[in-house]
Amino acid sequence: MVIVMQEGATDAQIQHVIDRLVGSGFNVHRSTGESHTVLGAVGVHRDFDHRDFELLDGVREVMRVTQPFKLASRQFNPQGTIINLGRGVTIGGNEVVVAAGPCSVESREQIHIIAESVAKSGAKILRAGAFKPRTSPYAFQGMGEKGLEFMREAAEKFALFSVSEVMDASQIQMMIGYVDILQVGARNMQNYHLLRALGEVRKPILLKRGMSATMEELLLSAEYILAGGNPDVILCERGIRTFETYTRNTFDIAAIPVIKKLSHLPMIGDPSHGTGRRDKVAPMARAAVAAGADGLLIEVHNDPDHALSDGAQSLDPGQFEQLMGELRIIAPAIGRRVA
Amino acid sequence: MVIVMQEGATDAQIQHVIDRLVGSGFNVHRSTGESHTVLGAVGVHRDFDHRDFELLDGVREVMRVTQPFKLASRQFNPQGTIINLGRGVTIGGNEVVVAAGPCSVESREQIHIIAESVAKSGAKILRAGAFKPRTSPYAFQGMGEKGLEFMREAAEKFALFSVSEVMDASQIQMMIGYVDILQVGARNMQNYHLLRALGEVRKPILLKRGMSATMEELLLSAEYILAGGNPDVILCERGIRTFETYTRNTFDIAAIPVIKKLSHLPMIGDPSHGTGRRDKVAPMARAAVAAGADGLLIEVHNDPDHALSDGAQSLDPGQFEQLMGELRIIAPAIGRRVA
Amino acid sequence: MVIVMQEGATDAQIQHVIDRLVGSGFNVHRSTGESHTVLGAVGVHRDFDHRDFELLDGVREVMRVTQPFKLASRQFNPQGTIINLGRGVTIGGNEVVVAAGPCSVESREQIHIIAESVAKSGAKILRAGAFKPRTSPYAFQGMGEKGLEFMREAAEKFALFSVSEVMDASQIQMMIGYVDILQVGARNMQNYHLLRALGEVRKPILLKRGMSATMEELLLSAEYILAGGNPDVILCERGIRTFETYTRNTFDIAAIPVIKKLSHLPMIGDPSHGTGRRDKVAPMARAAVAAGADGLLIEVHNDPDHALSDGAQSLDPGQFEQLMGELRIIAPAIGRRVA
Amino acid sequence: MVIVMQEGATDAQIQHVIDRLVGSGFNVHRSTGESHTVLGAVGVHRDFDHRDFELLDGVREVMRVTQPFKLASRQFNPQGTIINLGRGVTIGGNEVVVAAGPCSVESREQIHIIAESVAKSGAKILRAGAFKPRTSPYAFQGMGEKGLEFMREAAEKFALFSVSEVMDASQIQMMIGYVDILQVGARNMQNYHLLRALGEVRKPILLKRGMSATMEELLLSAEYILAGGNPDVILCERGIRTFETYTRNTFDIAAIPVIKKLSHLPMIGDPSHGTGRRDKVAPMARAAVAAGADGLLIEVHNDPDHALSDGAQSLDPGQFEQLMGELRIIAPAIGRRVA
Repeated sequence: MVIVMQEGATDAQIQHVIDRLVGSGFNVHRSTGESHTVLGAVGVHRDFDHRDFELLDGVREVMRVTQPFKLASRQFNPQGTIINLGRGVTIGGNEVVVAAGPCSVESREQIHIIAESVAKSGAKILRAGAFKPRTSPYAFQGMGEKGLEFMREAAEKFALFSVSEVMDASQIQMMIGYVDILQVGARNMQNYHLLRALGEVRKPILLKRGMSATMEELLLSAEYILAGGNPDVILCERGIRTFETYTRNTFDIAAIPVIKKLSHLPMIGDPSHGTGRRDKVAPMARAAVAAGADGLLIEVHNDPDHALSDGAQSLDPGQFEQLMGELRIIAPAIGRRVA
Repeated sequence: MVIVMQEGATDAQIQHVIDRLVGSGFNVHRSTGESHTVLGAVGVHRDFDHRDFELLDGVREVMRVTQPFKLASRQFNPQGTIINLGRGVTIGGNEVVVAAGPCSVESREQIHIIAESVAKSGAKILRAGAFKPRTSPYAFQGMGEKGLEFMREAAEKFALFSVSEVMDASQIQMMIGYVDILQVGARNMQNYHLLRALGEVRKPILLKRGMSATMEELLLSAEYILAGGNPDVILCERGIRTFETYTRNTFDIAAIPVIKKLSHLPMIGDPSHGTGRRDKVAPMARAAVAAGADGLLIEVHNDPDHALSDGAQSLDPGQFEQLMGELRIIAPAIGRRVA
Repeated sequence: MVIVMQEGATDAQIQHVIDRLVGSGFNVHRSTGESHTVLGAVGVHRDFDHRDFELLDGVREVMRVTQPFKLASRQFNPQGTIINLGRGVTIGGNEVVVAAGPCSVESREQIHIIAESVAKSGAKILRAGAFKPRTSPYAFQGMGEKGLEFMREAAEKFALFSVSEVMDASQIQMMIGYVDILQVGARNMQNYHLLRALGEVRKPILLKRGMSATMEELLLSAEYILAGGNPDVILCERGIRTFETYTRNTFDIAAIPVIKKLSHLPMIGDPSHGTGRRDKVAPMARAAVAAGADGLLIEVHNDPDHALSDGAQSLDPGQFEQLMGELRIIAPAIGRRVA
Repeated sequence: MVIVMQEGATDAQIQHVIDRLVGSGFNVHRSTGESHTVLGAVGVHRDFDHRDFELLDGVREVMRVTQPFKLASRQFNPQGTIINLGRGVTIGGNEVVVAAGPCSVESREQIHIIAESVAKSGAKILRAGAFKPRTSPYAFQGMGEKGLEFMREAAEKFALFSVSEVMDASQIQMMIGYVDILQVGARNMQNYHLLRALGEVRKPILLKRGMSATMEELLLSAEYILAGGNPDVILCERGIRTFETYTRNTFDIAAIPVIKKLSHLPMIGDPSHGTGRRDKVAPMARAAVAAGADGLLIEVHNDPDHALSDGAQSLDPGQFEQLMGELRIIAPAIGRRVA
């Protein structure tokens, strides 16, 4: 922590700050400049509210120095984490992995048709929701466990891995019987009870960035899972909330290279939620891969016009097939490949 | 729902949209203007993704007409909900009710000292956290049930009601033995599993606005609780996330009169989280009351410099006493009073 | 400037940063901590792009220490600037001064009626636009100089001071013949050509915060005017752009006490633009005064339903009269008064 | 315009709204639904403040139907505008055109070295600033006309076109003697005095999106120029301001496909300002092209570490050369090419 004193701070004020720092277990270095005194405080605390010092008399500004996350930081694993799903599919390595499927499982037939189609186009993971977080209590809330059962059948039949959202810690045990990756939705990114429970799971967790979460907060939420003992966290940019309302969210593609530098964890993009509009999904999917994403999460529906949820942001199978072709051209520009 | 067709939309396109609307159970009115055809769709659906129609050929724009919340709307209870806590204390009536106390219960002694002090200054409710949602897994996470026990003792001793945050549905049964009001934190505003569980509780719920939640989303989260059978929801503005970083959040005071017009539920303000800086709490508390808040949630600590969490935004007892005096002058300007 | 090196930065990297700092004219203090080396750079530059150092090898973070504004800072004039308009009216002193009037001058009759009415209710300044910055080129653009002429007549007749917006440096000479205060609109807050020209004017400037300007940027824009030789700058919060769209802008009332602490300049609030809705103007006006505003800018129209612009956010004379009465109750809570 | 009346609106209220609409020159269609009455108002006004109707008794919501821009809309020129710079270089056609160069002209030598280098790598346009809009009055403000002279020499020598920022209408006549494209910076996007003056110019205008401007506002600012008689407007996404502060701005890449659909004007991206960090420029440049940008604006400096401004976001010539190679791989994925 670095504390900058105001111009004209008195010796007594400076000494009081030093005493408080020492009392909190910090080693203090004092630099006396022409106009400002600067105090450097070095210690072991990751949990420290720097605002406590901001309000002391004579203090101009307090700046944190230590990154608040440790296990999630790039330094912890400089070469980067590669998550091995099996059968040669890895996330975080050279291949850009695509997860595709409907917003919600709607029926056995629907999920089979879509699984077959996305597998043929090159997807490696089947994505679909069984428990849906809906803004309105009156909206379709998902098929529940039955949906997971259908999803598992379809994934196995077409040699896909699977990912689905877990909404509450009480669902974890049941869900790990059905899916390969547990997804934490944007609205639950700071549901710490859930994050702690997922730290004890032995399956990869796909953690989506909250709608108004900074990149640092995303990494701190990952830290909850990592600190609990689960090393396999996949991060996901899915759009942030800004003043612009034409798109449902503002898809913050820069978060991809930023997070890849700050952290060793794989980072994928979800252009379906990132834009909320079908006709913008392909451009943003291409952009995410061009920016270095380790994978994509894309909503595909065999009949988007009649989807029970989010049809407006789902590609149809033909659009998805075309997109995969475009991605195969783009990925080599940065030394990656798409299956 | 109102659908505006593009200039030059063909009859076939218009008919296709009408067919889709009718197929979805709507009654359709068609207005043919000079440049645009406008379709009015009237139906019973509250669950409808208007984006499904935005992507149809020939459609310019789709606008929702029905408010998506019903039980939370002002029309449902035009005279406004007044929540009766007992002993003559009500929220939503003529009196501006103040809840005060530390961010976290830290010890029996601490909570007793603070309870006595805030009661003396005019607070009616003791606020304190026993389970703390912390951004970092390494930060103090609260005393847990022991803290609630101390809190209850202190509240009873000084004739205060009490409010504390519930972080997970599994904590509800235990917590209602200790507190009078269950608080849902900003990070959990869209934790639908928790909201549904709180619909079955028979105690008032204090629901905080999420950091990036619109006012409509806040009311939809309230709707989850109301639809579950619990009519006693208190809404709370606690600051939203914007580009401005000097204050921890941007305290959106306009939300107070806006929500009071849209909904019959009481609406209070939390200037401590709304600003994150002790020296800004009093101005914003005064502003919230001047704007019509039904109450305030204020962090007060007997020794803010040594608080285990959020000391930087806590008033000391003297500052709180002074603030209450200022509020007693302001409230009558709009026909309210402060105890 | 404080530069924090990465854990594991090499001596060569550290020395390179030091050399760059010295080469840029800084004095450098080096603190070697257990995990991090911290470099404090002290110098005279106010113009420095700290990002230049962020990209050097081995650097973790760079933090600016010196405030980039000087003449606008509170330290420059700790007791606060009071702007004397004459006839006993001052801004920044004990009295909360209210400027009121229509969005646009529409006719001689209109501006006279409104001026008479707001003067009677206690306003000291007449506000009205003659040149209007309109988002659409097809919207009413104001009456121009004729409007200023009508405005001056009305102001003089009812012993009011006057304020109107200047949109371009070429209008300044003409406008100072008509108005007492020149207003810079939010869209022009960073029109540096205009700001520089206003530095040479000998009338007070009312500088509105840009829609997405930080408080620091507002003070830097004030610095342009102050550095040009004009000491009389009045700052104005008028709402910022956020994700919330129910109100036209989010009125950031906390900016009032924040700016009052950072700067010696008077700070007023504009709840009409801050909310964009007539029924929210009075609550937000009360809130701004309760938070410590030195004044208010309020749109009042004798016939809001037929105003040529912004009628939706204009109070009618009766509403304004009632508001002034409410403000007279609130101001004394913080030792201020309203005429 | 569509006006939705409240449930329970009285016939008198509905009639009053109709009368107001008719009085304002609208034709009105009334749809009486089960719960709501909806009024469709068709007229010729592009200048209409819909908020005027929102506050009438009995009104629930007012929705604008007509797009407020006309000359900028895609419908006005469905096949898209292609701006011909000469010598076979066009913007808006099949080729992705890259403008590159330093933030500021610093010397004759500097601009020649950079011009030669970027021309060799495939840039078609030289970009550089002679008048700089700087947040601080103490920062380097550019070389002025001398810089433009150097820039013109360098551009001609290496067969490049040139673009530079105009900050005030008074500079236009002088600048058109030196540059091929006049740039309007983000801070001036709503400087209507300047926009109107540029409508009379016969050179293309590069109009940057303001930091907090919606896409619609960008198009309305373009409308000012188009309505003035200048048909050659190039739009530019350069990052918006959001809560995320790790990057200088949030580069809203989705704006590219959105604007391309709403408007016929060419749309380019500026990843240098969009991110503010050199190491993020190449990923975002690739992403912009993958999303369909018609061109790029990229800061390149021969010695970024010693640039007088914005060195932190400038590529060096080697990085730019590599980026151009990557773009040549990506562009064909969507049927485009890079020179």
